[in-house]
Amino acid sequence: MGSEEVKLIGLWVSPFVRRVEWALKLKGVEYEYVEEDIMNTKKSKSPLILKYNPIHKKVPVLLHHGKAIVESLLILEYIDETWKQNPILPKDPYERAMARFWADFGEKKLLEASFAALVLSHGEEQDKALKQTIEYLEIINGELKGKKFFGGETIGYLDLVMGWIPHWLPVWEEVAGTEVLDPIKFPHLNAWMENIMNFPIIKDYLPPRDKMLVYFHGRRQLLAFNVHTV
Amino acid sequence: MGSEEVKLIGLWVSPFVRRVEWALKLKGVEYEYVEEDIMNTKKSKSPLILKYNPIHKKVPVLLHHGKAIVESLLILEYIDETWKQNPILPKDPYERAMARFWADFGEKKLLEASFAALVLSHGEEQDKALKQTIEYLEIINGELKGKKFFGGETIGYLDLVMGWIPHWLPVWEEVAGTEVLDPIKFPHLNAWMENIMNFPIIKDYLPPRDKMLVYFHGRRQLLAFNVHTV
Repeated sequence: MGSEEVKLIGLWVSPFVRRVEWALKLKGVEYEYVEEDIMNTKKSKSPLILKYNPIHKKVPVLLHHGKAIVESLLILEYIDETWKQNPILPKDPYERAMARFWADFGEKKLLEASFAALVLSHGEEQDKALKQTIEYLEIINGELKGKKFFGGETIGYLDLVMGWIPHWLPVWEEVAGTEVLDPIKFPHLNAWMENIMNFPIIKDYLPPRDKMLVYFHGRRQLLAFNVHTV
Repeated sequence: MGSEEVKLIGLWVSPFVRRVEWALKLKGVEYEYVEEDIMNTKKSKSPLILKYNPIHKKVPVLLHHGKAIVESLLILEYIDETWKQNPILPKDPYERAMARFWADFGEKKLLEASFAALVLSHGEEQDKALKQTIEYLEIINGELKGKKFFGGETIGYLDLVMGWIPHWLPVWEEVAGTEVLDPIKFPHLNAWMENIMNFPIIKDYLPPRDKMLVYFHGRRQLLAFNVHTV
């Protein structure tokens, strides 16, 4: 597998990009990483993204033999189907459906609510999102009871999908000056977070925390500024 | 395959339920259909749905040997992985990724925009949603150029996912008194719609149009009433 065959277009701070990198590393697939700072340029000025993801105009984009695959969850499925070594999705159809179900829950419920609660919103809206975030964390804590990883003893698809929790969520907490990840309240989640942060491929490919703090502080301030001036 | 092994909990008017039925029929899987009218009862009063889909509280729910699988797109993947005959997803990983990409586009873009445009919204909001709907239909029309079905010569996953377009969309158009499915503007989409509506398994398992009209007229009126009285 020559490195010229696989290219990943990403953004350093994106958890969606990072999970794709983790999967490629887990599979031992060589790839070239291309940083595309879609946040600092107008979206319409990124010809690479416009070419390969004209509908959503987002990273990650995985290029394999020149063909583009977009949307991180679909890229993970593609990676698992293309490189069969170290499978990341379970084999059993029911377990696969459950992994996909919880992945979707992580994206549409927890990630959306916690990003709203800690970065995007203020006031009443923030209170509502914080309450939701706690509810979703409780559900995930319950799912992790008695498990080292979501899939059991070895790291898998759902761990990669949820892998943003132990690194991104604490940064967002600091940005908001609020805590949601109570280790007493969520012991199973807390244990899983430690397992994730000690897993070599994950801990070696995380964006630097100090740079993330600056970035997300900036995003929160920008939003506050917009709110106050509109 | 005894019929006691597979149960589908559904709602007659739901396109999400219908696509699961089409897939089961395509596979020749016997199943028992259970109608659960979540619209006419308070959601909290449907013990079946609360038991099997406590997170989203929605239909369809597929029960296989008592295990519940929810979310129609995940159920389609489950069906394809469990009953291998008449595959509905393509074999090639890239083609699979593209089928999933367009399925997601159909759900999150076209279905959402068109339901908003024709059933849920009024005034400026409706105009915006109508414009979006036309844009999305144009994109889908382009995707269908030169194809009998999305997957080529035979019906597949993406056709089942998009199968609501030729039956539900015209009902919503009539409810709104507006047209979006212009056959001159969207010839490839129009040809595909005819192929879908002539496909035995689909045309035999559609909810009755007159009953749908009453149902969606009711939903639109209820919303208008709420708007005017709030």
